[in-house]
Amino acid sequence: MKIEKDRVEILSGVRFGKTLGSPVAFMLRNLDWENWREKMARGGEGAGVEPLGKARPGHADLPGALKYGHRDVRNVIERASARETAARVMAGAAAKRLLDALGVTVTGHVVSIGPFGVSRDLEGNPEAAGRAESSVLRMADPDAEARCVKWIDQMKEAGSTAGGVVEVIATGLPPGLGSFVSWDRRLDGRVGLALMSINAIKGVEIGDGISLAGLPGKETLDEIFPGPSGGNLLLGNHSLPFHRKTNRAGGLEGGMTNGEPLVARAAMKPIPTQSEPLQTVTLGSWELASAHKERSDICAVPAAAVVAEAMTAIVLADAFLEKFGGDAIGDIICNYLRYLERICAR
Amino acid sequence: MKIEKDRVEILSGVRFGKTLGSPVAFMLRNLDWENWREKMARGGEGAGVEPLGKARPGHADLPGALKYGHRDVRNVIERASARETAARVMAGAAAKRLLDALGVTVTGHVVSIGPFGVSRDLEGNPEAAGRAESSVLRMADPDAEARCVKWIDQMKEAGSTAGGVVEVIATGLPPGLGSFVSWDRRLDGRVGLALMSINAIKGVEIGDGISLAGLPGKETLDEIFPGPSGGNLLLGNHSLPFHRKTNRAGGLEGGMTNGEPLVARAAMKPIPTQSEPLQTVTLGSWELASAHKERSDICAVPAAAVVAEAMTAIVLADAFLEKFGGDAIGDIICNYLRYLERICAR
Amino acid sequence: MKIEKDRVEILSGVRFGKTLGSPVAFMLRNLDWENWREKMARGGEGAGVEPLGKARPGHADLPGALKYGHRDVRNVIERASARETAARVMAGAAAKRLLDALGVTVTGHVVSIGPFGVSRDLEGNPEAAGRAESSVLRMADPDAEARCVKWIDQMKEAGSTAGGVVEVIATGLPPGLGSFVSWDRRLDGRVGLALMSINAIKGVEIGDGISLAGLPGKETLDEIFPGPSGGNLLLGNHSLPFHRKTNRAGGLEGGMTNGEPLVARAAMKPIPTQSEPLQTVTLGSWELASAHKERSDICAVPAAAVVAEAMTAIVLADAFLEKFGGDAIGDIICNYLRYLERICAR
Amino acid sequence: MKIEKDRVEILSGVRFGKTLGSPVAFMLRNLDWENWREKMARGGEGAGVEPLGKARPGHADLPGALKYGHRDVRNVIERASARETAARVMAGAAAKRLLDALGVTVTGHVVSIGPFGVSRDLEGNPEAAGRAESSVLRMADPDAEARCVKWIDQMKEAGSTAGGVVEVIATGLPPGLGSFVSWDRRLDGRVGLALMSINAIKGVEIGDGISLAGLPGKETLDEIFPGPSGGNLLLGNHSLPFHRKTNRAGGLEGGMTNGEPLVARAAMKPIPTQSEPLQTVTLGSWELASAHKERSDICAVPAAAVVAEAMTAIVLADAFLEKFGGDAIGDIICNYLRYLERICAR
Repeated sequence: MKIEKDRVEILSGVRFGKTLGSPVAFMLRNLDWENWREKMARGGEGAGVEPLGKARPGHADLPGALKYGHRDVRNVIERASARETAARVMAGAAAKRLLDALGVTVTGHVVSIGPFGVSRDLEGNPEAAGRAESSVLRMADPDAEARCVKWIDQMKEAGSTAGGVVEVIATGLPPGLGSFVSWDRRLDGRVGLALMSINAIKGVEIGDGISLAGLPGKETLDEIFPGPSGGNLLLGNHSLPFHRKTNRAGGLEGGMTNGEPLVARAAMKPIPTQSEPLQTVTLGSWELASAHKERSDICAVPAAAVVAEAMTAIVLADAFLEKFGGDAIGDIICNYLRYLERICAR
Repeated sequence: MKIEKDRVEILSGVRFGKTLGSPVAFMLRNLDWENWREKMARGGEGAGVEPLGKARPGHADLPGALKYGHRDVRNVIERASARETAARVMAGAAAKRLLDALGVTVTGHVVSIGPFGVSRDLEGNPEAAGRAESSVLRMADPDAEARCVKWIDQMKEAGSTAGGVVEVIATGLPPGLGSFVSWDRRLDGRVGLALMSINAIKGVEIGDGISLAGLPGKETLDEIFPGPSGGNLLLGNHSLPFHRKTNRAGGLEGGMTNGEPLVARAAMKPIPTQSEPLQTVTLGSWELASAHKERSDICAVPAAAVVAEAMTAIVLADAFLEKFGGDAIGDIICNYLRYLERICAR
Repeated sequence: MKIEKDRVEILSGVRFGKTLGSPVAFMLRNLDWENWREKMARGGEGAGVEPLGKARPGHADLPGALKYGHRDVRNVIERASARETAARVMAGAAAKRLLDALGVTVTGHVVSIGPFGVSRDLEGNPEAAGRAESSVLRMADPDAEARCVKWIDQMKEAGSTAGGVVEVIATGLPPGLGSFVSWDRRLDGRVGLALMSINAIKGVEIGDGISLAGLPGKETLDEIFPGPSGGNLLLGNHSLPFHRKTNRAGGLEGGMTNGEPLVARAAMKPIPTQSEPLQTVTLGSWELASAHKERSDICAVPAAAVVAEAMTAIVLADAFLEKFGGDAIGDIICNYLRYLERICAR
Repeated sequence: MKIEKDRVEILSGVRFGKTLGSPVAFMLRNLDWENWREKMARGGEGAGVEPLGKARPGHADLPGALKYGHRDVRNVIERASARETAARVMAGAAAKRLLDALGVTVTGHVVSIGPFGVSRDLEGNPEAAGRAESSVLRMADPDAEARCVKWIDQMKEAGSTAGGVVEVIATGLPPGLGSFVSWDRRLDGRVGLALMSINAIKGVEIGDGISLAGLPGKETLDEIFPGPSGGNLLLGNHSLPFHRKTNRAGGLEGGMTNGEPLVARAAMKPIPTQSEPLQTVTLGSWELASAHKERSDICAVPAAAVVAEAMTAIVLADAFLEKFGGDAIGDIICNYLRYLERICAR
């Protein structure tokens, strides 16, 4: 939420509002910088700065300090902080501008916080996701949202924190992004990498996801029918010569987009910082200690929806450039439209 | 299962049973090759070979044919088949030999098929996973396995198919593999990519996974205590100066291994081929058709456990080489032992 | 030369003479394999195989054995042999088929062997390069070739070997392959990597190359004039609205193709094996020894021309796919033609 | 030269003078920025800014504008300017700090400008290269330097420009960096990429380079002798159990360092800007025009020596990390020393 006070500066790569092909550098100043001027100084010897040796469970502190040989977990905390995802949101914003021009919309929303989730019909639903953007918790279902606000308050009171699940939906995607020919070109894997790499995400699903594993095969399929789908228009109002009535696969078959909206979900564990002291050890002495408590939010799930949206946009923009090449936006659009003409021909 | 009849030939890169540093080429001959000699011939014009235009739902057929401009879905079917994962198992076998030498064991087992799962205490349990290897369905729980066999039979009778969930556990891992410093170096993301890229996998979880999202923060943490853990010995019998009593995080914190076993799960949707004809369309004419039915297994979940084990081994072997360098196995072991001395020092 | 007796088998990725999008596996059997059956066996313990410890100067033997901890330089010799470049020629053949379809021709020829070179006007000359293909030493100048044959004979008699310089010319290239925006996307660098990575190559030049460094600036430029060039037709007979009268830059400006033919040269040192014994040391004992002499060619420069042609074709095919995307050859051609329409518009 | 007035700010990744493992961001402000504020503004529509359509020969202007669809070559000029190499020098400075700790020194010097070069014995000579740093033209030979100064003056008077050749020497390198096992891991190729990607470089050589192609084989070898070399001490005063009396190979055999100093040369064409107007065309109208003349240096060869040094340092630092892994400098040093113990054992 605090991110909204931040202002991004573009340092390079843009002229008269358009990218030039050269690298775009964004800068987001740490507004809290003054408070860290001494403790995190670039220069000097750090004289007088007491190393922080208590590793917080659930954070990067302990493995990070061991890996890099640090005695002060502050060397890990700053970069490992979810603050790093602000950079992904900046890159995602650029990716979204490209996708806009290709008729693609990517939207992240919150589908549950703690044990409370939105009505099932609001999942995998692009309109609902769009509506969610303006709500407090980025949720499309006001009743569920009210329950979630309560849960967050309860957690706050108990000195605890709340997790939840976010969903990203992308519409306007043609069939054929990604590929089945090599495992690392599969779009499901690349979405898996992008979402699972977000801080605190512990699970990722595409479409109906894990629940598909428990069903008989015939209840998990998306049959194909002739004729265009009502809703799914592609760039230039192209429509595919076939449609589906379900989207259990979440828009991916064989590691490729299949013409249906891409639907991916990511589950975030609660922020590990707790009011009640947690047992841990101190680096070096390895004695029992109480975990250092940084000031912390109670629930970062709405922010995670924004980050998940950004990461998905980056993956999709990559997949478009891979398939349609083009160094100039005009070329990309032309190449893409020609492909749509080919595959939409009847 | 049929894989067991296959024999892998090593064509290069190995001498007197040891890799040489140069590329290792494996060859697995398609035993069914004779039957495809004409239809899938390398040369000729394909005269007399009728294109197969009916795209099977749930497979790569439709997006694959559109993407590459094929009129015959056989051009897609062969490579998109799960048969491709045999190559991953070969590479994984090499990765496992390296991990063996570093004291790491990676084991995949089946935790559920259809709606039936193993007893909860057999999840995240390395011993159970090891035991599972010799069972029919690669499950550690005979009662659950019996129920799953029944479910598969039921599905078979109904002309349907069965999905399930597999779990991979890796033990003997030191803290500090992977990194928090860049999103694409996070081990959770890399495991996400590796598992989500397996055919038919629609969801991936680390540790307690998605269920963590619904709990109060304090029930999701793995506190840290002084003193070595009883079980988790590293190479050369090194033990860490700390331990945990839980492993909800599945061995990863901040995108790095944390000294606990890595636990990852992947959910496989049922095989999309069904006895009952499925609605689809024919490429080009875009008329309604019944999906072409290839002979098919009912349940590929035990095979997926083997593939997931292989993919995880590849990711971990990469992470070791990244951290410890070394061109010769002796060098890698020495570098790794020195690291253990540093981080296990009390 | 011996390569001509080899037959390549295509194991996968091709059907009815066309690639499928999936990986293409080539296999080239080592015809000499029987002779190495015991000494280079995959299995067994190597009992009775005496390690070869004498490292040949000028080869990978010594650094390779130290790097990988080998006691037997045979573990290095086989893979480090120029025989490895046969695989590059196979991949290059596939790249050349793609380039053919895009109207691009890539030809390697020999411009000098030992101190004798072709007439200066035959350098950077695509027709001459084409003619060279059928000559004994792949040279376009029969007089120079005769002198080179003599030089090779002289070297042979003296128990020595001969080096030389090869040149690759690619015609039909549009402006704008490669990029100036990041150093690793520059085409001159990528050609530098591709050619310098060929065994025994010790120098690479683009266009007039090193000689440009010694001239006054004004003698090194390729001025630009309005109107199409006579010779340089692009796919579909497109011609650029400008031309040059010189090509000192070898077709690259700012790390990109500029519409002129790409001209690159690579200098090969003589094969290091000599009749006269060379001083060296034995691994492990580090005592003085005479270098082990493998049977060897006298001059590999014509073969290097073939390899350089292949490597350049691979780089150019990559650059085309990067710029024009397209999964199907029809798409690539359409995207490319559209680009030509844009840039050739007057 | 103007670079010396620049001041680099480190924005992230460094604390108390040490890198943290996280990305290091450098910022170098463009001191000339005020003058471009309007013409190169990030925002606005560029109203009143006349597009510059005249493409300068020898620059990225023409292919860059066609590639990206620009009508104003300023969109290309800024990023394609050699000014971009300042970023490489910053990254190279970090790489050099790492190499320092590993006992490796990398030095770039100028060996010729125009037709005048340093005395032959000052090439491939680390001491000479070190001495050159303090001279005006970064040359170790005052007589040659005087002639070069004169050449530059002559070129200036003639409204022309001067090119030249730079050489980079790296000492303290162990055998075994890089590898012969795959073409893209060969260090000669990677040096080729790194140097050829520097603006205006048209040729690269390793060791005696192109001249080796013209000699009989026996005059091109570096025989190997028992016993340590006098000069070439590695980290911790380790010395190899063998030495050479020559270094014609420039320290690389089989794509790997061989224990001798790495010697690479890069030839820079003269800066293409000339006083006398050059013929060119205007984008879009394609009419004859005189090339736009930016203010320009006469000779950038000494600056190129600095850039070549930086790029070589980056390649070598990469090769060290690849071979020795290690996330902490202490680990890297330990792993490296152990390797030296192994290969220096007698």
